[in-house]
Amino acid sequence: MRRFGFEEAEVTRMLSAVGGDDGADASGRAELVARAAWSMLGEPGDRTAGLLVTALGAAMALDLLLDGATPASIAERVDPDAVAGRVALASDIDQALARWRPRLRSGAVVRSFEAAGRCGARLLVPDSALWPEAVDDLGVHAPIALWVRGADDALERLGRSVGLVGARAATSYGEGVAIDSSAGLAARGFAIVSGAAYGIDGMAHRAALATGGTTVAFLAGGVDRLYPAGHHDLLERIARTGAVIAELPCGAEPTKWRFLQRNRLIAAATRATVVLEAGWRSGSLNTAHHAAALGRPVGAVPGPVTSAASAGCHRLIRECDARCVTSVEEMVELFGDADTLAGGGADAAAEGRSSDEIRVIDALSARSMRSPDEIARRSGMSTASVLGVLGMLAMDGAAVRAASGWRKA
Amino acid sequence: MRRFGFEEAEVTRMLSAVGGDDGADASGRAELVARAAWSMLGEPGDRTAGLLVTALGAAMALDLLLDGATPASIAERVDPDAVAGRVALASDIDQALARWRPRLRSGAVVRSFEAAGRCGARLLVPDSALWPEAVDDLGVHAPIALWVRGADDALERLGRSVGLVGARAATSYGEGVAIDSSAGLAARGFAIVSGAAYGIDGMAHRAALATGGTTVAFLAGGVDRLYPAGHHDLLERIARTGAVIAELPCGAEPTKWRFLQRNRLIAAATRATVVLEAGWRSGSLNTAHHAAALGRPVGAVPGPVTSAASAGCHRLIRECDARCVTSVEEMVELFGDADTLAGGGADAAAEGRSSDEIRVIDALSARSMRSPDEIARRSGMSTASVLGVLGMLAMDGAAVRAASGWRKA
Repeated sequence: MRRFGFEEAEVTRMLSAVGGDDGADASGRAELVARAAWSMLGEPGDRTAGLLVTALGAAMALDLLLDGATPASIAERVDPDAVAGRVALASDIDQALARWRPRLRSGAVVRSFEAAGRCGARLLVPDSALWPEAVDDLGVHAPIALWVRGADDALERLGRSVGLVGARAATSYGEGVAIDSSAGLAARGFAIVSGAAYGIDGMAHRAALATGGTTVAFLAGGVDRLYPAGHHDLLERIARTGAVIAELPCGAEPTKWRFLQRNRLIAAATRATVVLEAGWRSGSLNTAHHAAALGRPVGAVPGPVTSAASAGCHRLIRECDARCVTSVEEMVELFGDADTLAGGGADAAAEGRSSDEIRVIDALSARSMRSPDEIARRSGMSTASVLGVLGMLAMDGAAVRAASGWRKA
Repeated sequence: MRRFGFEEAEVTRMLSAVGGDDGADASGRAELVARAAWSMLGEPGDRTAGLLVTALGAAMALDLLLDGATPASIAERVDPDAVAGRVALASDIDQALARWRPRLRSGAVVRSFEAAGRCGARLLVPDSALWPEAVDDLGVHAPIALWVRGADDALERLGRSVGLVGARAATSYGEGVAIDSSAGLAARGFAIVSGAAYGIDGMAHRAALATGGTTVAFLAGGVDRLYPAGHHDLLERIARTGAVIAELPCGAEPTKWRFLQRNRLIAAATRATVVLEAGWRSGSLNTAHHAAALGRPVGAVPGPVTSAASAGCHRLIRECDARCVTSVEEMVELFGDADTLAGGGADAAAEGRSSDEIRVIDALSARSMRSPDEIARRSGMSTASVLGVLGMLAMDGAAVRAASGWRKA
């Protein structure tokens, strides 16, 4: 089978460079390569690309492009019934083809796989086991593929993550808030997601690492171009225990547009976004707006009204209905996570416990029995790890086992 | 005519000690004395006292007490139709009589008038020209009388006032916020109302005085007992250019209950209440709750989340829907005062102008003509002063005169 001009051997070589094909069949493998190709054809959030890939599959959509199919014929395949809407769609596709054609070079795809292989990046697509499903809430604006450097565990923990963002121009107050918030949420078993920028973002990542927590950075360029340069070592550390993720392929440069689109990924991948310190026009307000548009909770930490560095947080509270949050407990409340808060909650349970124990306790209910598999799913841990921790908790008297499963003591 | 055991000559003597009878007839004079008597019978906010005085008039209600009327017969006079409700009302009155009887001493009334005369206090009742009508929104909990030391002008300006309150335990940040807020609002022609406590309240009064603005203090005890003692000189200064007001007669001590009830007067007398800095359990939150219960706008100024002194403000924003306000402009927006904000507004108009000029400019409309009387009513100034200021503004080109009145240039 040939796709995008590639021999099967070359497909195998490319995929093995980025962690293999996850056991996919020939058509799954073609889809993987085609999604990788699409991830460099359109800019992030390209609605028309999202539509075609969703409706036709990435490989089929790419073949139509390569075969020189007309916009009208592509539109007819996307939606054979909607005659009226099809004219508008054909017009969108016509404009999109003009954007995509200059990038339709198979050599670039090969090079991006090679660069990914060199830096140890993997390719994820929506069928991948580790794909962060929450980003699919972006609909036609969802990423087509994700390039990832990092641990499986960190990707699993995205299901229980918080976006902590803020301005580059941080004050010592803002940095203190970032350290306390990130360390406190990490200690409660939340993965800390941010954008690796100087200032607040960097401090959020660092505090999570310092407390042994999980942290994930979404980048605006390729994961082989760690940006900003001054955070190269920090990002290498994040990639070792957490994850560094981009929707653009390796080699891609960060641009202003890509930073704004990267913000939508932080908002979508997490359960809530909290802006820790931000000036009136900080880019972190953009992340908050994406989160609000997705219906995700948004929190903002207030600061002195005499500090311009807090004006953006106050603006979010005043104009955008962001919740005023002043402590880690109030950030956890953002999710309305009944299980996390039940029974006096996080604080009491967190005393002297490892973060794995806290995560298993959080995943237990005081009322209903849950199976180890269910607890594994909720905690974002493996079933084997969960069983080990449950054994420890049972000895402590913190968890109770019955025939039908486990519950909080 | 004899009321409460007083000869007419004694009534005349008492009333002349507190600024005369405002030209009232005999029944109006009796009502004045009776309201003064009621102001020491019940504690502030006594619902049953408010009901009887509203339904029967203060003099009639007092005569029934003095004549030893039964609770049932008083209830029947209050509401002859509502047979069912009357039993509950009679029971209320029965309990109230037990509270009031120990205080039913005509000597105390005489002494309170004498004390008021000595400190230059006047007696206001709802019929008085200078009565702050906004407090009537308290319904049966409205004050029955007010004892006032201060300028007519200050009482008139209560119609355009803001309550600025906060904790005694203020930080330098909170004091700075109080100074900026009070001075800024005073410069925009707002009277600054507060409770004369140490900390935020005192700073709000001082900043208003320092900028030549009007400030009004509501006290929990009598206006002859300036409390707290350390603010004696401050309160004397407020009484000279602004006003010091209490609903309890001279000689009354401030008590915890009276402080809480005093807070409802600050909330009711003003167009909005702003909490500038307050800890988690600050009494100023009580003022904010009263304002919210009255449907008055409530603002709270955020501060560092690391400062316990701002925890009450954040609590108001989080739990009580208080508006997060970070500047004088945002405080003015609380009122939704279209005229104040119209045409680029307060800031531009305030440059290099006296506070009287600013108040007249605020009272002018750019669209519609207004008469000097109307401008006097809106600005809380006398018509004579308004005409003087309008002359100045016309020379500056800031105000335009036409046959039908004046408008903003």
